[in-house]
Amino acid sequence: MNRLTGQLLISDSGSSATNVRYLSGFTAPDPFLYLKTAAADYLVVSIMEKERAVRQSNPGTQVFTPAELGLKGKQSGRWKDQIIKLMEIARIRRIQVSSGFPAGLYLDLQKKGVNISVTRKAVCPERAVKSRDEIVKIRKSQQAAVAAMKGAAALIQASSIDGKRRLSYKRQPLTSETVRRHIDKILIEHDCIGTDTIVAGGNQATDPHERGEGQLYAGEAIIIDIFPQSRKTGYWGDITRTFCRGKAPAELKKLYLAVKAAQAEALKAVRAGVCGDEIHALCCRVFEERNFPTTEQNGVHTGFIHGTGHGVGLDIHEQPRIGRSGAQLEAGQVVTIEPGLYYPGKGGVRIEDTVVVTETGFRYLASCPKKFELL
Amino acid sequence: MNRLTGQLLISDSGSSATNVRYLSGFTAPDPFLYLKTAAADYLVVSIMEKERAVRQSNPGTQVFTPAELGLKGKQSGRWKDQIIKLMEIARIRRIQVSSGFPAGLYLDLQKKGVNISVTRKAVCPERAVKSRDEIVKIRKSQQAAVAAMKGAAALIQASSIDGKRRLSYKRQPLTSETVRRHIDKILIEHDCIGTDTIVAGGNQATDPHERGEGQLYAGEAIIIDIFPQSRKTGYWGDITRTFCRGKAPAELKKLYLAVKAAQAEALKAVRAGVCGDEIHALCCRVFEERNFPTTEQNGVHTGFIHGTGHGVGLDIHEQPRIGRSGAQLEAGQVVTIEPGLYYPGKGGVRIEDTVVVTETGFRYLASCPKKFELL
Repeated sequence: MNRLTGQLLISDSGSSATNVRYLSGFTAPDPFLYLKTAAADYLVVSIMEKERAVRQSNPGTQVFTPAELGLKGKQSGRWKDQIIKLMEIARIRRIQVSSGFPAGLYLDLQKKGVNISVTRKAVCPERAVKSRDEIVKIRKSQQAAVAAMKGAAALIQASSIDGKRRLSYKRQPLTSETVRRHIDKILIEHDCIGTDTIVAGGNQATDPHERGEGQLYAGEAIIIDIFPQSRKTGYWGDITRTFCRGKAPAELKKLYLAVKAAQAEALKAVRAGVCGDEIHALCCRVFEERNFPTTEQNGVHTGFIHGTGHGVGLDIHEQPRIGRSGAQLEAGQVVTIEPGLYYPGKGGVRIEDTVVVTETGFRYLASCPKKFELL
Repeated sequence: MNRLTGQLLISDSGSSATNVRYLSGFTAPDPFLYLKTAAADYLVVSIMEKERAVRQSNPGTQVFTPAELGLKGKQSGRWKDQIIKLMEIARIRRIQVSSGFPAGLYLDLQKKGVNISVTRKAVCPERAVKSRDEIVKIRKSQQAAVAAMKGAAALIQASSIDGKRRLSYKRQPLTSETVRRHIDKILIEHDCIGTDTIVAGGNQATDPHERGEGQLYAGEAIIIDIFPQSRKTGYWGDITRTFCRGKAPAELKKLYLAVKAAQAEALKAVRAGVCGDEIHALCCRVFEERNFPTTEQNGVHTGFIHGTGHGVGLDIHEQPRIGRSGAQLEAGQVVTIEPGLYYPGKGGVRIEDTVVVTETGFRYLASCPKKFELL
């Protein structure tokens, strides 16, 4: 990077916030500025955050409050004024921002004569390969997810089945909500948060984004997808299992075994140097061979309707992607392998693990049994 | 709005996502497009979301998948291609986006010849005034918060105090983490999520953004700030209480009583037509009269170092603001009133309620006792 150019980020949302957390070591509930130049890293935070920013940011980071930039009154709360002052202090003439940078602020800065450009390059491509320390953090979240999954399986297994195949536990209907609460409480015990835990049975499970609600039944596939984030570190875990309380209909069992086989094939292929799309193609082949087609009719997409996996880190979905397109995997990447099949009227099945890519294969971050029928 | 102009939003982050949820009635884990013209509302969602989008969006909304827009392959996943096709279908020549719109996409569309402009107007100013239905939803989250607060108070009150003033419960140290877990589990019972529950004691409580960790002690102020979001509706609640296990030192008690008096003064002033800054000034006056100054020395800000309140809805912090600047309140707005005082070495106190503004005053959304010493 040129001495005169700085990379500017605002921790205002989504991946921008996690990029800033990754690069600076600091995170806060309110958005703040981060600037990286060849010479140094800079943060502009409110006075309320100053002390914590100094303590938590990477050594050598220069932390300013708006007042310390020389801003007063209304100016102190304006991004454009903060940025212009910070550029003076950092002695840079140009700033680069990522494509997600707010357009209004971009135009404001341009109007003020700031030399600003949008770069299309990924902000932190290095985030895809995890350090040992990061892997330890992701493992903790994954262990929380596994503990919660085991708890959910035990609860479903302990449920009673009535004449209408309805599940109940301690004389109360066993619902998606009950199971989700049980899961989320276990996550809390592990200092993790599950914001969108999926417990979807029957036809609900055929929509991969349906969180699930209401009565659960025996003899149906119940997809449970648990993705907790550690409160402390911000790193995520991700796991999915599909269960059936009682005996599964033969058709549904075939569906399950196809997904299980596809996941096993995909996992066998995981290692540094393999392309994501090759892994995805392996899953597709297993489904074709077993006559589970993927089709789109009348606006309804059925079969294997999503990618095979994604990276996991400070974002639940990050690089690399394992799907129809996908670059070569690298050792140290943490990815999910999660094929699934979805047929309205029949059911949905997904099996997902989060693994570390190694030179020769992969390592599970936490092991969890794959058992379909809970008898 | 001109027939030829559309207001375009992407549900990609923060307030943009909640604006889309508010305007369209629909929300999804992956970002999607929303366009509003004088003639109709449009959504572009993945095929996976189509059915749910049709079901959950406001009646009359036109829902498209990228394929239905005529896009194939790589194009179907590109915002710029989706937007251009959607503009053709909606027969508009110009689009307006908000200042948070991604700069990269803004430039891409400009390059493609799209007539796009950034408007500085608030996207949904009408969000500040809540409908009856919205108030019911916020009340539910507030009731969850109150239940959790009562649970936390009971836990602290039931704790034992050892010779070093450390709190313990069932022979285990009572920590911020223990109390937070207890709170968050109660929120889960109410189908709410507490992502950043604050339980901060002693000096930690003097940093309003410190979540709190470690051993809790008797004779110190413990700030508990609970802001749950309903899983189902997305609406938030917000409440803060400050407790002291055992007798409080005289100094600390004065601090508490000053904050309690300031909150009472502020609440007395709340009604439609009053300006936010007037309410804030009332709190400041109470603190001045009681000799609790607000100062900034050596980069450390002490005293009343934040605003008096904010709106609560689909975002935890939204319009209106009640602080040094602040517009006239309107009936139907839901706001917090939360003065606080923070003095490192002495302690921090904050008391917060969420109320509905009425023509003649305010209504609590849920009532919760204000008790400092838990003896």
